[in-house]
Amino acid sequence: MKYCSHCASKLTIKIPADDSRERHVCEACGSIHYQNPRNVVGSIPVYEKQVLLCRRAIEPRHGYWTLPAGFMELGESTSHGAARETLEEAGAQVEMGPLYSLLNVPHAEQVHLFYLAKMTSSQFCAGEESLEVALFHEHEIPWAELAFPTVKQTLEWFFADRAAGLLEAGKGFQVRSRDVLPSERI
Amino acid sequence: MKYCSHCASKLTIKIPADDSRERHVCEACGSIHYQNPRNVVGSIPVYEKQVLLCRRAIEPRHGYWTLPAGFMELGESTSHGAARETLEEAGAQVEMGPLYSLLNVPHAEQVHLFYLAKMTSSQFCAGEESLEVALFHEHEIPWAELAFPTVKQTLEWFFADRAAGLLEAGKGFQVRSRDVLPSERI
Repeated sequence: MKYCSHCASKLTIKIPADDSRERHVCEACGSIHYQNPRNVVGSIPVYEKQVLLCRRAIEPRHGYWTLPAGFMELGESTSHGAARETLEEAGAQVEMGPLYSLLNVPHAEQVHLFYLAKMTSSQFCAGEESLEVALFHEHEIPWAELAFPTVKQTLEWFFADRAAGLLEAGKGFQVRSRDVLPSERI
Repeated sequence: MKYCSHCASKLTIKIPADDSRERHVCEACGSIHYQNPRNVVGSIPVYEKQVLLCRRAIEPRHGYWTLPAGFMELGESTSHGAARETLEEAGAQVEMGPLYSLLNVPHAEQVHLFYLAKMTSSQFCAGEESLEVALFHEHEIPWAELAFPTVKQTLEWFFADRAAGLLEAGKGFQVRSRDVLPSERI
Protein backbone atom coordinates (compact mmCIF):
# COMPACT_ATOMS: atom_id res chain seq x y z
CA MET A 1 0.00 0.00 0.00
CA LYS A 2 1.79 3.10 -1.29
CA TYR A 3 -0.87 5.62 -2.32
CA CYS A 4 -4.05 6.96 -0.74
CA SER A 5 -7.11 5.27 -2.27
CA HIS A 6 -9.15 8.44 -1.59
CA CYS A 7 -6.85 11.15 -3.04
CA ALA A 8 -3.86 9.34 -4.69
CA SER A 9 -1.26 11.11 -2.49
CA LYS A 10 1.74 9.16 -1.26
CA LEU A 11 1.13 7.45 2.10
CA THR A 12 3.24 7.72 5.24
CA ILE A 13 3.63 4.95 7.80
CA LYS A 14 3.21 6.40 11.30
CA ILE A 15 1.36 6.00 14.57
CA PRO A 16 -1.72 8.26 14.44
CA ALA A 17 -2.75 10.33 17.48
CA ASP A 18 -4.82 8.21 19.92
CA ASP A 19 -3.41 4.99 18.47
CA SER A 20 -0.59 2.65 19.46
CA ARG A 21 0.21 1.01 16.11
CA GLU A 22 1.77 2.08 12.85
CA ARG A 23 -0.83 2.69 10.13
CA HIS A 24 -0.81 3.83 6.53
CA VAL A 25 -1.73 7.50 6.89
CA CYS A 26 -2.43 10.13 4.21
CA GLU A 27 -0.97 13.47 5.30
CA ALA A 28 -2.81 15.17 2.41
CA CYS A 29 -6.41 14.21 3.14
CA GLY A 30 -6.07 12.79 6.66
CA SER A 31 -7.31 9.29 5.82
CA ILE A 32 -6.04 6.38 7.88
CA HIS A 33 -5.99 3.10 5.92
CA TYR A 34 -6.49 0.30 8.45
CA GLN A 35 -5.71 -3.29 7.54
CA ASN A 36 -7.44 -6.17 9.28
CA PRO A 37 -7.50 -9.97 9.07
CA ARG A 38 -9.92 -11.59 6.64
CA ASN A 39 -12.36 -14.43 7.32
CA VAL A 40 -12.32 -17.62 5.27
CA VAL A 41 -15.71 -19.32 5.67
CA GLY A 42 -16.50 -22.90 4.75
CA SER A 43 -18.51 -25.98 5.58
CA ILE A 44 -18.18 -29.69 6.38
CA PRO A 45 -20.89 -31.01 3.99
CA VAL A 46 -22.08 -34.44 5.11
CA TYR A 47 -24.15 -36.96 3.15
CA GLU A 48 -24.90 -40.32 4.76
CA LYS A 49 -21.74 -40.39 6.92
CA GLN A 50 -19.56 -39.20 4.02
CA VAL A 51 -17.84 -35.79 3.76
CA LEU A 52 -17.70 -33.78 0.53
CA LEU A 53 -14.26 -32.56 -0.54
CA CYS A 54 -13.10 -30.48 -3.53
CA ARG A 55 -9.82 -30.89 -5.43
CA ARG A 56 -8.47 -27.39 -6.07
CA ALA A 57 -8.24 -26.08 -9.62
CA ILE A 58 -6.49 -22.89 -8.44
CA GLU A 59 -3.40 -21.85 -6.55
CA PRO A 60 -2.39 -22.04 -3.79
CA ARG A 61 -2.30 -25.84 -3.44
CA HIS A 62 -3.58 -26.66 -6.93
CA GLY A 63 -4.51 -30.36 -7.14
CA TYR A 64 -4.92 -30.80 -3.37
CA TRP A 65 -8.18 -31.57 -1.57
CA THR A 66 -10.06 -29.10 0.60
CA LEU A 67 -13.37 -28.50 2.32
CA PRO A 68 -15.38 -25.94 0.34
CA ALA A 69 -14.38 -22.51 1.72
CA GLY A 70 -13.44 -19.04 0.60
CA PHE A 71 -13.19 -15.39 1.59
CA MET A 72 -16.26 -13.93 3.26
CA GLU A 73 -17.79 -11.16 1.14
CA LEU A 74 -19.24 -7.78 2.16
CA GLY A 75 -22.95 -7.88 2.94
CA GLU A 76 -23.16 -11.55 3.88
CA SER A 77 -23.04 -13.44 7.16
CA THR A 78 -20.42 -16.08 8.01
CA SER A 79 -22.88 -18.96 7.52
CA HIS A 80 -24.33 -17.51 4.30
CA GLY A 81 -20.78 -17.16 3.00
CA ALA A 82 -20.06 -20.78 3.91
CA ALA A 83 -23.23 -21.92 2.09
CA ARG A 84 -22.35 -19.78 -0.95
CA GLU A 85 -18.84 -21.25 -1.17
CA THR A 86 -20.27 -24.78 -0.81
CA LEU A 87 -22.59 -24.13 -3.75
CA GLU A 88 -19.95 -22.36 -5.88
CA GLU A 89 -17.08 -24.82 -5.36
CA ALA A 90 -18.93 -28.09 -4.87
CA GLY A 91 -22.37 -27.52 -6.45
CA ALA A 92 -23.95 -28.79 -3.25
CA GLN A 93 -27.05 -27.50 -1.47
CA VAL A 94 -26.74 -27.78 2.30
CA GLU A 95 -28.73 -27.15 5.43
CA MET A 96 -26.26 -25.16 7.53
CA GLY A 97 -25.67 -26.29 11.09
CA PRO A 98 -23.77 -24.59 13.90
CA LEU A 99 -20.23 -23.22 13.79
CA TYR A 100 -17.86 -26.13 14.34
CA SER A 101 -14.28 -24.80 14.22
CA LEU A 102 -12.47 -21.47 14.35
CA LEU A 103 -8.78 -21.52 13.44
CA ASN A 104 -6.60 -18.45 13.59
CA VAL A 105 -3.85 -18.19 10.98
CA PRO A 106 -2.12 -14.98 12.14
CA HIS A 107 0.83 -15.23 9.72
CA ALA A 108 -1.63 -15.36 6.79
CA GLU A 109 -3.79 -12.62 8.37
CA GLN A 110 -6.80 -14.94 8.24
CA VAL A 111 -9.42 -16.55 10.46
CA HIS A 112 -10.91 -19.83 9.16
CA LEU A 113 -14.45 -20.72 10.22
CA PHE A 114 -16.09 -24.06 9.35
CA TYR A 115 -19.78 -24.88 9.81
CA LEU A 116 -21.40 -28.28 10.15
CA ALA A 117 -23.64 -28.82 7.12
CA LYS A 118 -26.06 -31.51 5.94
CA MET A 119 -26.33 -32.04 2.20
CA THR A 120 -30.01 -31.91 1.26
CA SER A 121 -29.47 -34.31 -1.66
CA SER A 122 -26.70 -36.46 -3.14
CA GLN A 123 -26.23 -33.92 -5.97
CA PHE A 124 -22.91 -32.11 -6.37
CA CYS A 125 -20.61 -30.98 -9.18
CA ALA A 126 -17.22 -29.33 -9.58
CA GLY A 127 -17.41 -25.53 -9.74
CA GLU A 128 -14.89 -23.39 -11.64
CA GLU A 129 -12.37 -23.48 -8.80
CA SER A 130 -12.51 -27.31 -8.44
CA LEU A 131 -10.97 -30.04 -10.61
CA GLU A 132 -13.28 -32.62 -9.07
CA VAL A 133 -15.59 -33.06 -6.08
CA ALA A 134 -16.22 -36.33 -4.25
CA LEU A 135 -17.76 -37.87 -1.13
CA PHE A 136 -15.39 -39.67 1.25
CA HIS A 137 -15.94 -42.05 4.14
CA GLU A 138 -13.54 -41.43 7.03
CA HIS A 139 -11.17 -44.23 5.97
CA GLU A 140 -11.04 -42.84 2.41
CA ILE A 141 -9.94 -39.26 3.28
CA PRO A 142 -6.77 -38.38 1.31
CA TRP A 143 -4.93 -37.19 4.43
CA ALA A 144 -1.59 -36.72 2.64
CA GLU A 145 -3.20 -34.69 -0.13
CA LEU A 146 -5.14 -32.13 1.90
CA ALA A 147 -4.59 -28.50 0.91
CA PHE A 148 -4.41 -26.66 4.23
CA PRO A 149 -3.64 -27.39 7.92
CA THR A 150 -6.97 -25.83 8.95
CA VAL A 151 -8.83 -28.35 6.77
CA LYS A 152 -6.81 -31.29 8.09
CA GLN A 153 -7.32 -30.20 11.71
CA THR A 154 -11.05 -29.61 11.22
CA LEU A 155 -11.52 -33.06 9.67
CA GLU A 156 -9.50 -34.73 12.48
CA TRP A 157 -11.62 -33.00 15.12
CA PHE A 158 -14.83 -33.77 13.23
CA PHE A 159 -14.26 -37.53 12.96
CA ALA A 160 -13.11 -37.76 16.59
CA ASP A 161 -16.09 -35.78 17.89
CA ARG A 162 -18.53 -37.70 15.70
CA ALA A 163 -17.14 -41.04 16.93
CA ALA A 164 -17.53 -39.80 20.51
CA GLY A 165 -21.19 -38.93 19.86
CA LEU A 166 -20.65 -35.23 20.54
CA LEU A 167 -22.22 -34.00 17.30
CA GLU A 168 -25.62 -35.64 17.71
CA ALA A 169 -28.57 -33.24 17.46
CA GLY A 170 -29.50 -31.58 20.72
CA LYS A 171 -26.08 -32.06 22.32
CA GLY A 172 -24.06 -28.96 23.04
CA PHE A 173 -20.40 -28.87 22.06
CA GLN A 174 -17.69 -26.30 22.40
CA VAL A 175 -16.40 -24.80 19.16
CA ARG A 176 -13.06 -26.36 18.34
CA SER A 177 -10.37 -23.70 18.12
CA ARG A 178 -6.63 -23.23 17.92
CA ASP A 179 -3.96 -21.08 16.31
CA VAL A 180 -2.03 -22.41 13.31
CA LEU A 181 1.75 -21.90 13.36
CA PRO A 182 3.75 -20.64 10.35
CA SER A 183 5.75 -23.87 10.44
CA GLU A 184 2.69 -26.07 9.89
CA ARG A 185 2.62 -27.79 6.55
CA ILE A 186 0.71 -30.91 5.63
CA MET B 1 -11.99 3.86 -2.90
CA LYS B 2 -11.08 5.89 -6.00
CA TYR B 3 -7.37 5.35 -6.67
CA CYS B 4 -5.07 2.31 -6.80
CA SER B 5 -3.06 2.00 -3.58
CA HIS B 6 -0.23 0.35 -5.55
CA CYS B 7 0.18 2.77 -8.49
CA ALA B 8 -2.20 5.74 -7.84
CA SER B 9 -4.12 5.24 -11.11
CA LYS B 10 -7.87 5.79 -11.16
CA LEU B 11 -9.84 2.61 -10.32
CA THR B 12 -12.64 1.06 -12.35
CA ILE B 13 -15.53 -0.89 -10.85
CA LYS B 14 -16.04 -4.10 -12.85
CA ILE B 15 -16.39 -7.86 -12.57
CA PRO B 16 -12.93 -9.38 -13.07
CA ALA B 17 -12.46 -12.52 -15.20
CA ASP B 18 -13.17 -15.68 -13.13
CA ASP B 19 -15.21 -13.67 -10.63
CA SER B 20 -18.92 -13.02 -10.18
CA ARG B 21 -18.85 -9.76 -8.23
CA GLU B 22 -17.96 -6.17 -8.96
CA ARG B 23 -14.54 -5.20 -7.58
CA HIS B 24 -12.34 -2.14 -7.57
CA VAL B 25 -9.91 -2.95 -10.39
CA CYS B 26 -6.81 -1.06 -11.58
CA GLU B 27 -6.60 -1.24 -15.39
CA ALA B 28 -3.06 0.23 -15.23
CA CYS B 29 -1.30 -2.28 -12.97
CA GLY B 30 -3.88 -5.09 -12.88
CA SER B 31 -4.45 -5.00 -9.10
CA ILE B 32 -7.83 -6.05 -7.75
CA HIS B 33 -8.70 -4.35 -4.46
CA TYR B 34 -10.94 -6.74 -2.55
CA GLN B 35 -12.98 -5.54 0.40
CA ASN B 36 -14.03 -7.92 3.16
CA PRO B 37 -15.88 -7.74 6.48
CA ARG B 38 -13.89 -6.96 9.62
CA ASN B 39 -13.94 -8.79 12.94
CA VAL B 40 -14.72 -7.02 16.19
CA VAL B 41 -13.35 -9.15 19.05
CA GLY B 42 -14.23 -8.76 22.71
CA SER B 43 -14.79 -10.52 26.01
CA ILE B 44 -17.32 -11.01 28.80
CA PRO B 45 -15.00 -10.40 31.77
CA VAL B 46 -16.43 -11.96 34.93
CA TYR B 47 -15.38 -11.38 38.53
CA GLU B 48 -17.32 -13.12 41.28
CA LYS B 49 -20.61 -13.31 39.32
CA GLN B 50 -20.26 -9.70 38.14
CA VAL B 51 -19.61 -8.59 34.55
CA LEU B 52 -17.20 -5.76 33.66
CA LEU B 53 -18.57 -3.06 31.36
CA CYS B 54 -16.97 0.10 29.90
CA ARG B 55 -18.70 3.42 29.28
CA ARG B 56 -17.56 4.66 25.89
CA ALA B 57 -15.44 7.82 25.63
CA ILE B 58 -15.56 7.72 21.82
CA GLU B 59 -18.10 7.74 19.02
CA PRO B 60 -20.17 5.90 17.99
CA ARG B 61 -22.36 5.65 21.08
CA HIS B 62 -20.31 7.98 23.29
CA GLY B 63 -21.48 7.66 26.90
CA TYR B 64 -23.12 4.25 26.44
CA TRP B 65 -21.98 1.00 28.07
CA THR B 66 -20.30 -1.85 26.23
CA LEU B 67 -18.36 -5.04 26.73
CA PRO B 68 -14.66 -4.41 26.00
CA ALA B 69 -14.20 -5.06 22.26
CA GLY B 70 -12.56 -3.63 19.17
CA PHE B 71 -11.26 -4.35 15.69
CA MET B 72 -9.02 -7.40 15.37
CA GLU B 73 -5.50 -6.41 14.29
CA LEU B 74 -3.14 -8.04 11.79
CA GLY B 75 -0.87 -10.67 13.32
CA GLU B 76 -3.07 -11.56 16.28
CA SER B 77 -5.63 -14.29 16.92
CA THR B 78 -9.28 -13.62 17.77
CA SER B 79 -8.79 -14.48 21.46
CA HIS B 80 -5.54 -12.51 21.76
CA GLY B 81 -7.35 -9.55 20.22
CA ALA B 82 -10.17 -9.93 22.72
CA ALA B 83 -7.66 -10.04 25.62
CA ARG B 84 -5.81 -6.99 24.23
CA GLU B 85 -9.02 -4.96 23.98
CA THR B 86 -10.01 -5.99 27.51
CA LEU B 87 -6.68 -4.72 28.82
CA GLU B 88 -6.69 -1.52 26.70
CA GLU B 89 -10.27 -0.45 27.37
CA ALA B 90 -10.90 -1.83 30.85
CA GLY B 91 -7.41 -2.30 32.34
CA ALA B 92 -8.36 -5.86 33.25
CA GLN B 93 -6.24 -9.01 33.05
CA VAL B 94 -8.29 -12.04 32.12
CA GLU B 95 -7.94 -15.75 31.61
CA MET B 96 -9.61 -16.24 28.23
CA GLY B 97 -12.22 -18.96 27.97
CA PRO B 98 -13.98 -20.35 24.89
CA LEU B 99 -15.76 -18.41 22.18
CA TYR B 100 -19.25 -17.62 23.44
CA SER B 101 -21.08 -15.65 20.74
CA LEU B 102 -20.72 -14.82 17.06
CA LEU B 103 -22.98 -12.10 15.69
CA ASN B 104 -23.01 -11.09 12.06
CA VAL B 105 -23.70 -7.43 11.32
CA PRO B 106 -23.79 -7.52 7.51
CA HIS B 107 -24.96 -3.91 7.05
CA ALA B 108 -21.93 -2.72 9.06
CA GLU B 109 -19.64 -5.19 7.27
CA GLN B 110 -18.64 -6.66 10.63
CA VAL B 111 -18.59 -9.93 12.58
CA HIS B 112 -18.65 -9.58 16.38
CA LEU B 113 -17.02 -12.34 18.44
CA PHE B 114 -17.21 -12.46 22.25
CA TYR B 115 -15.17 -14.79 24.48
CA LEU B 116 -15.94 -15.92 28.00
CA ALA B 117 -13.24 -14.52 30.31
CA LYS B 118 -12.39 -14.77 33.99
CA MET B 119 -10.79 -11.73 35.59
CA THR B 120 -7.65 -12.86 37.38
CA SER B 121 -7.99 -10.09 39.99
CA SER B 122 -10.44 -7.36 40.98
CA GLN B 123 -8.19 -4.73 39.39
CA PHE B 124 -9.45 -2.64 36.45
CA CYS B 125 -9.27 0.96 35.25
CA ALA B 126 -10.67 3.08 32.42
CA GLY B 127 -8.48 3.09 29.32
CA GLU B 128 -8.31 6.03 26.89
CA GLU B 129 -11.47 4.94 25.06
CA SER B 130 -13.53 4.56 28.26
CA LEU B 131 -15.10 7.22 30.50
CA GLU B 132 -15.47 4.70 33.31
CA VAL B 133 -15.39 0.97 33.91
CA ALA B 134 -17.47 -0.91 36.46
CA LEU B 135 -18.57 -4.37 37.62
CA PHE B 136 -22.30 -5.15 37.41
CA HIS B 137 -24.44 -7.88 38.90
CA GLU B 138 -27.14 -9.10 36.51
CA HIS B 139 -29.86 -6.93 38.12
CA GLU B 140 -27.62 -3.85 37.86
CA ILE B 141 -26.93 -4.02 34.09
CA PRO B 142 -27.87 -0.68 32.46
CA TRP B 143 -29.98 -2.37 29.75
CA ALA B 144 -31.35 0.91 28.36
CA GLU B 145 -27.87 2.41 28.11
CA LEU B 146 -26.02 -0.34 26.23
CA ALA B 147 -24.07 0.78 23.18
CA PHE B 148 -24.72 -1.97 20.63
CA PRO B 149 -27.32 -4.69 19.90
CA THR B 150 -24.54 -7.31 19.78
CA VAL B 151 -23.55 -6.44 23.35
CA LYS B 152 -27.16 -6.49 24.57
CA GLN B 153 -27.83 -9.84 22.88
CA THR B 154 -24.60 -11.39 24.19
CA LEU B 155 -25.39 -10.30 27.77
CA GLU B 156 -28.98 -11.61 27.51
CA TRP B 157 -27.71 -15.00 26.25
CA PHE B 158 -24.96 -15.06 28.88
CA PHE B 159 -27.22 -14.52 31.89
CA ALA B 160 -29.81 -17.01 30.58
CA ASP B 161 -27.19 -19.68 29.88
CA ARG B 162 -25.47 -19.11 33.21
CA ALA B 163 -28.77 -19.40 35.08
CA ALA B 164 -29.45 -22.67 33.21
CA GLY B 165 -26.06 -24.02 34.32
CA LEU B 166 -24.80 -24.33 30.73
CA LEU B 167 -21.56 -22.41 31.28
CA GLU B 168 -20.17 -24.55 34.08
CA ALA B 169 -16.66 -25.90 33.45
CA GLY B 170 -16.56 -29.14 31.54
CA LYS B 171 -19.99 -28.74 29.99
CA GLY B 172 -20.16 -28.29 26.25
CA PHE B 173 -22.32 -25.54 24.80
CA GLN B 174 -23.08 -24.39 21.30
CA VAL B 175 -21.76 -20.97 20.34
CA ARG B 176 -24.65 -18.50 20.39
CA SER B 177 -25.09 -16.91 17.00
CA ARG B 178 -27.46 -14.78 14.96
CA ASP B 179 -27.54 -12.01 12.38
CA VAL B 180 -28.28 -8.44 13.46
CA LEU B 181 -30.78 -6.51 11.31
CA PRO B 182 -30.20 -2.91 10.15
CA SER B 183 -33.40 -1.91 11.99
CA GLU B 184 -32.09 -3.05 15.38
CA ARG B 185 -31.49 -0.24 17.77
CA ILE B 186 -31.34 -0.45 21.54
